Amino acid sequence: MIRAHITVSLKEDVMDPQGKAVHEALASLGHGTVKRVRVGRYFDVTLDESDVEAARAKLRDMCEALLANTVIERYEIRLESLAQARTAPITEGGMA
Amino acid sequence: MIRAHITVSLKEDVMDPQGKAVHEALASLGHGTVKRVRVGRYFDVTLDESDVEAARAKLRDMCEALLANTVIERYEIRLESLAQARTAPITEGGMA
Repeated sequence: MIRAHITVSLKEDVMDPQGKAVHEALASLGHGTVKRVRVGRYFDVTLDESDVEAARAKLRDMCEALLANTVIERYEIRLESLAQARTAPITEGGMA
Repeated sequence: MIRAHITVSLKEDVMDPQGKAVHEALASLGHGTVKRVRVGRYFDVTLDESDVEAARAKLRDMCEALLANTVIERYEIRLESLAQARTAPITEGGMA
């Protein structure tokens, strides 16, 4: 079993009004040290798969087909083996 | 400068109909090895702060005050120093 933490966010050159609104709200709460906020989606996916590379390939497929709109968004996949300690990432995710 | 990757997701015992819908959509696309999907939000926050513990304390405040509804959601904060390589996490995030 492999657990994947997938984040999907707007590409750098795409406007993010939601991130801007969160940035302004944080500033109004006194968090003036915040310089930038980007907002995206998070998917926590558990796969019945033991091979890390096979899992990564499947997860890329899922991102390309459903989870992300790759015209304006990028995704990052971070994997964790559920056989190991649950907090230990086994690989760092690729960007696309 | 510190960059924080914050994920906010529903607590384990809270129903996640959006995750269920994504799970079913992935199954219909042929991804039968998917066992579970949970959907949440992602915030990419850049802070003008050099101290990791000070940054973490501020980010917890932000999560508690605005980014997460801690009655039904939990958050995870992963930090990265922008002075280092942008892909190297410097600490693993705490759950709440």
